[in-house]
Formats: sequence, structure tokens, C-alpha cells
Amino acid sequence: MSKQTIYYTLTDEAPALATSSLLPIFGAFAKEADIELKLTDISLASRVISSFSDLLPANQQAEDGLKFLGDLTASPEANIVKLPNISASLPQLNAVIKELKAQGYDLPDYPENAQTDAEKDILARYSKVLGSAVNPVLRQGNSDRRAPAAVKGFARKNPHSMGKWKKTSVSHADYMRDGDFYSSEQSVTMGAAQTVNIEFVKKDGSVELKKSLPLLKGEILDSMNISCAKLRAFFEATLQEAKEDNIMWSVHLKATMMKVSHPIVFGHAVTVFYKDVFAKYGELFKEIGVNPNNGLGSVYDKIKTLPEAKQAEIKQAIEDVYNTRPELAMVDSDKGITNLHVPSDVIVDASMPAMIRGSGKMWGRDGKAHDAKAVIPDSTYARIYQETINFCKTNGAFDPVTMGTVPNVGLMAQKAEEYGSHDKTFEIAEAGTMRILDAQGNVLMQHAVEKGDIWRACQTKDAPIRDWVKLGVTRARQSDTPAIFWLEEERAHDNELRKKVTTYLKDHDTSGLDIRLMTYNEAIRFSMERIIRGEDTISVTGNILRDYLTDLFPILELGTSAKMLSIVPMLEGGGMYETGAGGSAPKHVQQLMEENHLRWDSLGEFLAVAVSFEELGIKHNNEKAKILAKCLDKATGKLLDTNKSPSRKAGELDNRGSHFYLAMYWSQELAAQTENAELAAKFAPLAKVLAAKEDTIVAELAAVQGKPANLSGYYNIDLDAVEKVMRPSATFNQALATL
Amino acid sequence: MSKQTIYYTLTDEAPALATSSLLPIFGAFAKEADIELKLTDISLASRVISSFSDLLPANQQAEDGLKFLGDLTASPEANIVKLPNISASLPQLNAVIKELKAQGYDLPDYPENAQTDAEKDILARYSKVLGSAVNPVLRQGNSDRRAPAAVKGFARKNPHSMGKWKKTSVSHADYMRDGDFYSSEQSVTMGAAQTVNIEFVKKDGSVELKKSLPLLKGEILDSMNISCAKLRAFFEATLQEAKEDNIMWSVHLKATMMKVSHPIVFGHAVTVFYKDVFAKYGELFKEIGVNPNNGLGSVYDKIKTLPEAKQAEIKQAIEDVYNTRPELAMVDSDKGITNLHVPSDVIVDASMPAMIRGSGKMWGRDGKAHDAKAVIPDSTYARIYQETINFCKTNGAFDPVTMGTVPNVGLMAQKAEEYGSHDKTFEIAEAGTMRILDAQGNVLMQHAVEKGDIWRACQTKDAPIRDWVKLGVTRARQSDTPAIFWLEEERAHDNELRKKVTTYLKDHDTSGLDIRLMTYNEAIRFSMERIIRGEDTISVTGNILRDYLTDLFPILELGTSAKMLSIVPMLEGGGMYETGAGGSAPKHVQQLMEENHLRWDSLGEFLAVAVSFEELGIKHNNEKAKILAKCLDKATGKLLDTNKSPSRKAGELDNRGSHFYLAMYWSQELAAQTENAELAAKFAPLAKVLAAKEDTIVAELAAVQGKPANLSGYYNIDLDAVEKVMRPSATFNQALATL
Repeated sequence: MSKQTIYYTLTDEAPALATSSLLPIFGAFAKEADIELKLTDISLASRVISSFSDLLPANQQAEDGLKFLGDLTASPEANIVKLPNISASLPQLNAVIKELKAQGYDLPDYPENAQTDAEKDILARYSKVLGSAVNPVLRQGNSDRRAPAAVKGFARKNPHSMGKWKKTSVSHADYMRDGDFYSSEQSVTMGAAQTVNIEFVKKDGSVELKKSLPLLKGEILDSMNISCAKLRAFFEATLQEAKEDNIMWSVHLKATMMKVSHPIVFGHAVTVFYKDVFAKYGELFKEIGVNPNNGLGSVYDKIKTLPEAKQAEIKQAIEDVYNTRPELAMVDSDKGITNLHVPSDVIVDASMPAMIRGSGKMWGRDGKAHDAKAVIPDSTYARIYQETINFCKTNGAFDPVTMGTVPNVGLMAQKAEEYGSHDKTFEIAEAGTMRILDAQGNVLMQHAVEKGDIWRACQTKDAPIRDWVKLGVTRARQSDTPAIFWLEEERAHDNELRKKVTTYLKDHDTSGLDIRLMTYNEAIRFSMERIIRGEDTISVTGNILRDYLTDLFPILELGTSAKMLSIVPMLEGGGMYETGAGGSAPKHVQQLMEENHLRWDSLGEFLAVAVSFEELGIKHNNEKAKILAKCLDKATGKLLDTNKSPSRKAGELDNRGSHFYLAMYWSQELAAQTENAELAAKFAPLAKVLAAKEDTIVAELAAVQGKPANLSGYYNIDLDAVEKVMRPSATFNQALATL
Repeated sequence: MSKQTIYYTLTDEAPALATSSLLPIFGAFAKEADIELKLTDISLASRVISSFSDLLPANQQAEDGLKFLGDLTASPEANIVKLPNISASLPQLNAVIKELKAQGYDLPDYPENAQTDAEKDILARYSKVLGSAVNPVLRQGNSDRRAPAAVKGFARKNPHSMGKWKKTSVSHADYMRDGDFYSSEQSVTMGAAQTVNIEFVKKDGSVELKKSLPLLKGEILDSMNISCAKLRAFFEATLQEAKEDNIMWSVHLKATMMKVSHPIVFGHAVTVFYKDVFAKYGELFKEIGVNPNNGLGSVYDKIKTLPEAKQAEIKQAIEDVYNTRPELAMVDSDKGITNLHVPSDVIVDASMPAMIRGSGKMWGRDGKAHDAKAVIPDSTYARIYQETINFCKTNGAFDPVTMGTVPNVGLMAQKAEEYGSHDKTFEIAEAGTMRILDAQGNVLMQHAVEKGDIWRACQTKDAPIRDWVKLGVTRARQSDTPAIFWLEEERAHDNELRKKVTTYLKDHDTSGLDIRLMTYNEAIRFSMERIIRGEDTISVTGNILRDYLTDLFPILELGTSAKMLSIVPMLEGGGMYETGAGGSAPKHVQQLMEENHLRWDSLGEFLAVAVSFEELGIKHNNEKAKILAKCLDKATGKLLDTNKSPSRKAGELDNRGSHFYLAMYWSQELAAQTENAELAAKFAPLAKVLAAKEDTIVAELAAVQGKPANLSGYYNIDLDAVEKVMRPSATFNQALATL
């Protein structure tokens, strides 16, 4: 039997730190089944370094781990465990550049206004690293995401806290009724393979080619536009309304993933909210390089170069705004960080579920939770949050003890409905027409646009859609659960998809299955009506709803989306096993640095690696791998039941301690199983030693806590230094080494 | 050609007064087509008198008009125009008795606690008059109700006022989650015709027969129970919550129509709200005959026999309650009349649409409109109001200019789902079991009950259901509009209906029609999503939803339900044409008495009589009747377009003036039509004279206004006296007499 390989990703922040402790355990167990776990670095820092490796000395160069894994996805042998990574906003990118330069990497600064060819080259390299740069490369399959039975069972027995909902809550989601992507979407399905041209036609009739786009037969192409004027009018109207109704104002975007469009939208929110400040100091701000798309933080940052008196004047002008505007939701009221300070602080898919879980409230300047107007400009998806809020006002908060589950089958293979569609998104420089011409020069779609509008195209290939329909039917059959395709006739793109879905459903045996197509509001309402009756419903959705729903429902059902099992069955036959979201990972790192306690929960890794083993077991007829998988799942269940997940408090069991218990339970399960005597014999001594030394090991792991931990970097961590921090129990390390 | 007859009902209040002016016009025009309009008295007063005619002197006796019409419904010749009548609450019944006694009728008082056989006989006679006593007798067909095109068009061109909705409105509908009719409903379909027994089994095992009920094969029988303890706990919880949330409290019931169950529910609302008062004075109240089911008004009424000091003490105790309870919605804040004063003041099917039309607000003690918690205990139908409120918070107020329409096909023939099911409703005297046994003595359904619970059974025959399904399909075909059967699987009764509907739909050609079965929330949401897109949706519903929806949508679409066309195609082939609701009729009478201005709009009568003519025309091949009908509809449209409907203000055109214009336009249309020269010739002179004397007639009609009008009774009106008031234009009367 040839050696089989699991590619385990090294990412960023807390998940990367946890890997230092967890991977040695996985590796030690796996080698008994002739499986090797190879660490592949796709951290933000390594992606920056590899982008500039041709300009760096040999000892600083790095392999492009992301490219390696991307190539691997084309192989049926691909078996990748993918941990959460940073989707870098510009401030984060600037931070990593700063850190690497301090570490001696001679990297160029990010050129905000690239003029020369050299600057443009630098900008292009950095642009590839920004935002959601990893997932489009690796996700060469559709997504199958669900709460594993053990996790759901644990949540039912140990429900997380849920804020009560008042029937008189005034919280709501507010969105554009006109002028947004939803209202303007157009969509066509390509009758033949061809290259289409995206063009901008100026008022004088001159034509500028923005992009040529090769498309396959059957590919769906969309185009849409957000009106800058209507967006700003919408922000202003919501502010007036919030002021009049005395409700807190809170904007929810996705400026990280939607790295081209949403920072601009965020910038408009900033300049509309602080319009008095920008009216008075706008010219000065331009001179000193303030970029509102980077948030109000950019103002505070850039004015540091000004005389102190001027700084004070500007700061006072900002403070004065709070007297004329409604209360603004805070990210950190202690530190005065508002919703508008940093574009990456409030990310809609995590922030809205958190708001809904927390009685529909956001945090105010007074450090207290208040009802809020959640402003989510594009109505395409914003409506599902309003539907959910209305549902909670009517039926009260969801109850984790009794609620059903909503797993997701998401369309995302081959960059289907690519998130943000960065390379096809344009901020419009002057009034004119954006249009797409087919190979014969016929206009497929066009939009009249004004200066400042954000126009984008989006593509979805046919093969992933076929695969997605198949996966939806398969999941409905496997779990005997109704499956709802969230596709609405009023949306142009969905209408094209509806035709394909209706056709491709006929390729499958759907007898006895409950498979339906519904509008988003109908679908979420149907799912919620079922969920409060303890019933499950599979959501079969496009890419963005996939992303939103696999945060929304898990956060309500499980308290976190990190506990979800996320499988990407690749189109080419391989598999990727993604682990939970890293939304709160930065706070985790901070706590580790301050008091050497890592609260990160590696549950997602436990679940993913089990499926990864199982898949190898089935593919290569590797019985030991199957047993490793089965016992790992049992160990995970036991770990949950015995409450050995990381605590949030220094001095108590943390990430490292939970890894120890996983190893102990896993070895016990392996020793106790009777399917494979060799494995049982192999793990019995370890099981015995870990049980015997449990107190010692837990004490060693606790002893290091309470004082600062020394990490040699935040983004570009030193693995040796991190290992010293993350593997402090000599007793545990020695026991593991005996395998 | 034999003479054909339209039976035109004399009812109560404003509609009865309007009849004095309008019927002579209809009669004069109709005789040209050999049609006679016969006035049949079914007023509350006449029903009381006829119930006691055997005890009254000959000159005071009255024919039982209701029985006459009820018998007529069995004939295919039945052609009845039915105007709104009083569904008497107990206070209204007491008022009519008082008035009749003052007029010299030697009637017994209503025996609240009937003990002797004589008293029980009196009670039985009065009980037949109480509540919804007319409709069950006359409605021997299902209901087809819609906004006529002319009316809908007029509303689009002349939209009524609609209160804006705030996204931050805290108004909501609140209902029981457990212990109500909805939660406890059981239902069976009879396999064979038989008589079933409703029994009460005491804790000691003894059995009391409550009622024997003969049922037909295929008849659906339901039983359900409201828990008194849970109802009172629900009221208390809503009060606590409203107090805590600082929102006005407002109870919405249907104590008139649901004359057995809802006064009891209303009484619980009164005694829970004023629990401190009833705790302290409950015994005294019993002694002096306070009946909380008659509202707080009963307290104020009965304490008049007490010493002034005691009265003041009790009044102060009532005032003190307002300090401990949330603000209570007011019916008339100027006069201090609260939501809890009189059971007939706030009737859910009219009050909730009015609240929704008025920004979701009710009136407070300060005379201003405030957001409110609308308390509607039984969740069966309350949920549709919450869904509507959430919809308005999300989408804003409905826009009469652009909104679609929701006509209704309602199941009601042969007392289907009889409203309130009075004769099968029981307030439970002690803990035990209510059960229904079939003819073989098998238990069909049973409920454990406690003292104070309200248990009821409800029956629905098969033939009306078949006819209703047919009518639904017919309407869907005629108007090419989606038709939704509002039937939900979670409701026991609906589940039985779903089986029948699914079966009977197969009897019809439904090809190309969009006919669906939906839950109430789905159905109202579907209808509202369509309505804001300008699309129409037929609601095909049971009896109570029929009643609720034909107020809700008309009030939103047209500003009133009085403008709806309401047809009852009788099972036996005849037809009844019902005219609009009389919700605000008492205020109209008051205005007439004070300043001789009647604002009642007879539009419903215009529409109904046109259909009544048309039906006779078709049935008897009476071409003149068809032309009368067609020209009447045109005249009605012209009257709307020229704004000749009654004004609300004394001195301006009122009900009588609008009748004049109808006659003028109608005669003009008849003179101008070319289908029948004889009719044209007949009406040309009248058309000419009315046009010539328009100013004179309008002046004569205006001249009488501004001073009190002398009516010789409120309930038992003197037709001669009323005619003097209602036909004051000698010029108009003379012109009409020339026909």
C-alpha cells in the first residue's frame, strides 16, 4: 500500500497556532495507517512573500503553497484539510507588509495610487493577495456543509446562551428598494462558447474595452450596477430615519471578501455619516492621503502628520457629528471604535447572526446593547435578515434545545458566482454605458451608469451547476430531508439557474423526495417554520447564500459556525475538508499573547480530519484509516460530552488541553475497538499512559498560563517559537513520541 | 311575463334610513321591467317583536320576516337584497327592549339568570335574536365577494388616506401559544349519517348529555377547547409584558357574532385587567348584578344603585388600576370609553384592519394614536394580523393606487363552520371531560376540561364544501387569477377539508389554472407579496377567514368594506346580494339626529341591486332587467367619477343627494342606450327633468340640513316619520312619481 497524504494547511492567527499543537497528534496517529499529513503554508504572510519571491534573497523566498494546492485540486488524489485563513482587508495587508519589513523583508509599500508600470506591477501582486484569495483557488467543488450529529446533540444537551427577543423590538434590517445590484441585475446563458467583451461607452460615443472574458457553452453571465447617488441617498435616508425614530444605526457589509465593491460602499457610508467633517476637511484629507474606504480609522491615522491643534480641531469636528447623527453602533465602546472605523470589523455574515442571537441588539457608546437599524444596502440577501428578525419578534428567540437544523449544499465550484467577482468589478469614472458584447458584437446586456456607480459582472459555469443539483439530490436522499433550492423568479440570475435546475433535476431519481424551488423569503421562512418544530431542511443555494446561511443557522443552532462539518467534494474526484470560521480568531491571539491561554476550539479540525481519514479509507481500501476516522469521531463526541473543549478563561483548560483529551480519548477508542487487533495493540500503551498521567499533563498545560506568551510574529509566525508555546507539556510530548 | 320580485330587506340604523330614500327610486325604475321590490322587515326590533307576537296585542304583532326569507332561500326564485343588520350584543338587546317598552310594547326584561320555566322560555326567545342571528338563516349558499372594477378603479384614482408605517413600529398582534381553540382542535369526518351525542363526564364518572346532533354522511365535526386558566394567564402575561415594554394594550374580540364564547373571553379580559377592583369588590358586584362579560360599562351601570360615597370609592379604585396597568386603548378618549367598556365596541375583523390602515396605532387616553399590543387570544386567525403587521413594517403601508386585489370565495352555506357555533358552545361548570360519541357509543373526540373552560363543537356539511370548491374553480377561471385555498395541515379541521378539496378539485377542469393549498401565513404572505406588485389573488377560505379577509383587504384597498360586491349563489339556485358592512352605522344615525345629515354610502346597494336585476334578466330572459342592470352599473361608475358620493359634513351632499344623482345618471344612461327603444323613451323625460332641476333638488336636499332630525325611534323606526326626513325634496319626489 503506497503512502497516502493529507495536505493540512497552515493559515493565520489562532488556527495556525492551534496547528502547532494539533498536527503532531494527527501525524502520530495517522502514520499507523500509512498516512502522512503534510503542512502547506497558505498564510497571508507566506502569500505576500511568495508573490515577491523573485525580488527577495534566496533565504527569504517561499514556495507558493496556494498554487501548489490549487494544482492539486485537479487530481482525484487531492485530500486537503483547509483551516480558516485571513481574507485580508487593505488595513490588514498594510499590517502584514509592515511586520514583514520589520522582520527584514525588503517589500514595497502597497501603492494606493499606482502610476508607474512598476507600481502597477506591485499593485497587481498585492491585489491577488487581498480579500477572498484562497477559497476561489481551492474550492474546485461544490460545498456540503452541516452540523455533525455529535455536535448537534451536544448543543441540544448544552445549549449556548440565546438573547430573548421582545415583541416590541424595533430592530430591523434596512435595504435599498431601488438602484442596488438586485434591482439592476441582468443575466444571459451562453448558447455557444465564445469570448465576450466588457466595454464602457462614454457619452461622446468612444468605447473603452474593460475586459475580455472567455466563456463556455451554457455558462451564465450576469451584470449589475449599484447607483452611487441612490446608495448615498439611501444611507442619508436611513440616518434621517434612525435619528427621527431614535434607533441606533449600524452598517453591515462584507468589505473583506467583496474586496473591490464593498470597501467603496463602506467608504460612502463613512463619508455620508461624517458628511460635515468631509465637507469641511475633504480637500485636506485628500492631501494627507485619507482613504474613507479604509474607515474613519484612516482619518485618525493620517491626521497624525498634522499640527496638534489641527488634529484636535478635526477630532472635535468628528465628535460634533455624533450630536447630529443617530447613535452609531460600536465595535469596542471602551476604546471608542465605531462601526465605521475599520471596514473589516463588521462582516455581515457573522455580524447579523450575532445580532439576531443577541436579542437583535448591537453595542452602543454606553457599552450597553441597544436595538438597531441594520443597514445592508443590497437587497439581494439583506431581505433574509429582515425575515429572520420578524420571525424572532413573532415567535421569540430560537431554542437550541429543540430547534431543527439547516444544512447547506452550496454552488461554488470553478468560481461559480465568484464572491465579489473582483476582476469584473468596476467603479465608474464618468457617466456612460457599461455593456457586454458577444463574439458577434451584439449587445448582451447593458446599463446606463453614472460616475461613482459600481458595476460588476459575474459568471457561473454549467458543469458546477449540474454537480450542485446532483449533490442536492444526493444529500436529500441520504438524510431523507426536504431540500429547497433558493432561487427566485424576480432575480435575473436565478431565473437562468431555475431553467437549468429544473432540467437537471430530471437526470436524477427524485421519487419520494421533497425538492422545491422557492424565493429567498419563502425559503428562509419555510426553513424557520420547520426549525422551530424541530424539523430539518436542506438549503440548496448559490455561493453567497451558502456563505451567509452557513453562518446564520450554525450560530443560532450551535452558537458558532466553527463547529460545522464542511466538505467540498471536488469535481475532479478529490476532496477538501474545511474547518470552521475564524471570525473571532484575532481576539484569541491577543489573549494568548497576554496570558498564554488559547481559547480557539479545534473541533472543526477534529471533524474535518475524521472525514479526511474516512475518505482515504474508502478510496484506498485502507481499513486502518476507516477505524482511525470512526474512533476520532467517537473521541470527539466524548470530548464534547465530558466538556473538555477549551475554556475562555486563563488558567482553565485551553486549546492545548483539549488536544490532549482528544488524543487520550482517541487512543482509548482505538485500543478498545475490536475490528483491528494490530491498531488496538498499538494504541493500548498510549491510552494507558495518557490516562495515568492525565493530572500531570493537565497541570503542565495549566502551569504556563497567566503570563505573556512570546510569539515572534503575528502574521509571519516562527514555527519553532510557536511550537515552544503550544507544546509545553513534556509528559504529553514524550508519550506521543512513543507511537 | 309574470311579475318578478326582489326581496329588499329593512334592517337597522343607517342602512334602514337610507332605504326610505333609495327604495322608492329602485321601485320606480324596476316596475318598467315588470319587477317589484318588496320590503321585508328583519330589523332587530321586528325580530324581537315577532318573537313575542303571541303575547302581544294584534296591532303590535309582526310577521317574522326572517323566517319568511329563510323559507324563500329553498326556492330557485329567491332574489334577496340583504342590507347590513345589527348582530346584537346583550347591551344592544337590552336597549331595544327598553325602547320598545317605552313605545308601549309589553315585553319582558332579558332574564340574565333564568330560573323558572317561564324565564327560560323568555331567555330562549331572546337568545335567538342575539348575535349573528340573520346570516345563518339566509346564507344558504357560499359567498363570492369582490371589489367591482368601477370601485377598484375609483380607489386607484382617488386613494383613501393610509397611515405611514414606521420600520420601528412596536405594534404587534399577540396570541396564545397553547390552551386555545387552535391548539386543542380535533376533527372527524362522518363515515355515515348518524346522531352523535355531546356529553360531559364529571370526575365522579356521571355523564350529562349536553346535546344530540344529527349529522349527514361526509359531514365534518370539530371540537375544541379554550383553557380558562391559560386564557387568564395569557391576558396577565400580555399585560405584564405591555407594562414592561411601555406599549398600549388593546384587546380585539368578536363578542357580537361569537355571542356565546367571546363575551366570556371579553369578561376574562375585564376581570384580569381590573383584577384589583374585582378582588376587592367582586362579592358586592355579584350582589348588584355586575356582569363583566358586558364590559366595565356594566360596573358603572350597576353601581348607580349604591350610595354616592361607595360609587366614588369604586370609581377611584378603577382609576387606581390605570397606574398599575399598561396604557389601555380607548374607544372614545373624550368620553373616557376604554377598549374594555362595551364588548361590541371593538370587533376584531373591523378593528384590526383599521389599526393596520392607521399606521398600526390605536387611540390612547391622551387622544393621540399610539403603537399597541393587539391581544387576540385564539391563534387560529390572530396570526394573519401579525403577518400583516410584519409585512407593513418591512414594506411600508399598502398603496391603494398600485395595490392588487384579494377577492374571496367563502365557505358558509348551510351554516358551514357556523360562526361561534352557539348551540354547541359550553362554558364548563366543573372539571371533567367533554366528549362526542358516535351512534355506536364510540368516543369520536374528547377533551379534558376545567371549570371555566369554553368548549365548542362545529359542523360543516359535505354539499356546501363541494359547491365551494366548484365556486373557487369557477372564479379562478372567470378572472384568470390564482386561487388559494387557505387550509393548513397543522389544523385538524383543515386537514379534513384538505382531503375533500383535493378530491373535489378533480371533478373540475383546472387546466391552466393556478390553484394551491397553503397555510394561513403562507397564503396571506403570498397574497400580500402579489398585492404590492399590483397582482390579484383569490382567497378561497372557510367561514371566519371569509369574514375577516373581506374586511381586511377591502379596508386596505378601498378604505371600507362597504363598497364590496357580495353575492351568495344559493345551493337551491336562488341568489342573495349582500351589501357592505355596517360598522360605523351608529355614528351615522347620531349625526342624522343631530344635524339631519346622513353620510351613509349606499354604493353597496347600487352594486347589489344591479346584480339582482341582472340575475332576474338572465333567469327570466327579461331584457329590460338586463338593461336596467347595465345602466345602473354605468350610473354608479359615473357617480363615483363625478364625486357624488355622500360627504361626511353637514350641508354638503349626503346619502339622499347621492340617491338623486344615481337616479339622474341612471335615467340618462337608460335614455341614451339604444338596445331597447321603449325603455329609452320611457326614461328620457325623467332624465331631462332631473337634469333641468338638478340645482333645485340639490338645494332642497341641502336646505333641511343643519338642524336636528326627528326620528320616532332608534331601533323600531316609524317608516312614515323616517320617509318625511329622508325624502325632503318635493321636486325630486314629483319627478320620480311621473314614471
